[in-house]
Amino acid sequence: MESYPFSCPIQVRWRDLDAFGHLNNATVAIYLAIARTNVWTSLFGSKDALAIPFFVKRLEINYRRPVGLDDEVQVWLRVGEIRGASFTFEYLVEAAGEVAATASTRLASVDKEIGRPVRIEASVRATLETLRSNEE
Amino acid sequence: MESYPFSCPIQVRWRDLDAFGHLNNATVAIYLAIARTNVWTSLFGSKDALAIPFFVKRLEINYRRPVGLDDEVQVWLRVGEIRGASFTFEYLVEAAGEVAATASTRLASVDKEIGRPVRIEASVRATLETLRSNEE
Amino acid sequence: MESYPFSCPIQVRWRDLDAFGHLNNATVAIYLAIARTNVWTSLFGSKDALAIPFFVKRLEINYRRPVGLDDEVQVWLRVGEIRGASFTFEYLVEAAGEVAATASTRLASVDKEIGRPVRIEASVRATLETLRSNEE
Amino acid sequence: MESYPFSCPIQVRWRDLDAFGHLNNATVAIYLAIARTNVWTSLFGSKDALAIPFFVKRLEINYRRPVGLDDEVQVWLRVGEIRGASFTFEYLVEAAGEVAATASTRLASVDKEIGRPVRIEASVRATLETLRSNEE
Repeated sequence: MESYPFSCPIQVRWRDLDAFGHLNNATVAIYLAIARTNVWTSLFGSKDALAIPFFVKRLEINYRRPVGLDDEVQVWLRVGEIRGASFTFEYLVEAAGEVAATASTRLASVDKEIGRPVRIEASVRATLETLRSNEE
Repeated sequence: MESYPFSCPIQVRWRDLDAFGHLNNATVAIYLAIARTNVWTSLFGSKDALAIPFFVKRLEINYRRPVGLDDEVQVWLRVGEIRGASFTFEYLVEAAGEVAATASTRLASVDKEIGRPVRIEASVRATLETLRSNEE
Repeated sequence: MESYPFSCPIQVRWRDLDAFGHLNNATVAIYLAIARTNVWTSLFGSKDALAIPFFVKRLEINYRRPVGLDDEVQVWLRVGEIRGASFTFEYLVEAAGEVAATASTRLASVDKEIGRPVRIEASVRATLETLRSNEE
Repeated sequence: MESYPFSCPIQVRWRDLDAFGHLNNATVAIYLAIARTNVWTSLFGSKDALAIPFFVKRLEINYRRPVGLDDEVQVWLRVGEIRGASFTFEYLVEAAGEVAATASTRLASVDKEIGRPVRIEASVRATLETLRSNEE
């Protein structure tokens, strides 16, 4: 987890559990989005992702262990590859001190008017660079 | 809000908004459940509502103002009427310092084996009494 | 149910259940919204509620029996009281042939620009009148 | 889509949209689960996944185009690789006649008592074989 420069605590909800009594697999994707909106706030001053034209193009989650209602959950986040019009967030979901899941999302910078990918602005790119893995 | 002896901060999620860009009306019902599981933890030591055989029999929410992603949200809670096999939680949902909604839920003590209401245990009743309105 | 002029089948999802293994209480509020968008489509030709400036001001649900994943669910709907700037939908949630819940929502006609209630248009009012209880 | 032997229509809900006005990315994971419970019903006679001890170990979704409330949505499904204690479902999410997303989930056969992977039963394996790609 030391290689992830950003982390965000998650308030686990009773509604996040499914009929197995564990955190539902789709809900992990929602937790990743919580980390994203929190990182936007800390970088750009607002949680409102609407102002940040990035759309999820690819999602990948590897589930390692079930998460229960009483587990303390934290999502760790770092920036992976940055391309011209997209970049990757890498995540580690920690629950009760253990790795519950690892994940990544590729986010595309999309012009909402024309609905097409556009180059990531230089200032945004520079900010994203600050969230690279701590290991390098 | 001073008349509510318990309060619980809510982590508002991007996914809680709907296509109007505001907190979805059904999500308020989920916020009430967050407050309930939190009050169970503080009273009984565990968030796990499964151990507490109360089922929602009636839900009522009055919406006063829209809630946005950047609003700080808090659910205030107090116990209303206590009957033999059910009681009422009353809630105030505060967002950005204002009353966003008021609500109540009637919860029935249900024996899961037989699926029927049962008398609230005396110790639980005594604990619920501690969450009466501060105003009296 | 004969007194409800509109009905809408619900596709129950595994995710609609909670850790009790039954339909979560907040999810019933989502089912009511499915019925509303379906009735909008049948009356006005589009499911997109964004075009219809009604906001939920009050929600009330009475839960009668638990709903399981294999139950066939149907939401029945009729119009109750119509006032100047708001009206009431009344619902019956049927599951496996029995009444699982009854509910009502008061919906206010809201001008999105000014964020304030406005008079329901005469043509909308006339259409809503067609969804009055069949019993009269 | 012809290579997918199973398909399942999805009832798109207003609540499935997010503040962008499109189907939320996490909700696609819920749609995949709807297809899974439907395929269980058609193969084994019950939607109740609780009886089928498979847990999602890996989820991957590639998003191709936004989905709106009025789009007709269908999830197509086929079985990919079958290993000793896990197998892969491959999905195509069709919306308004176009490919909105492709996805896959690796599902592990897990003994709930011991919480560990167990060999897929021969009869289940034989049934899964019937959902192989139509193309071969």
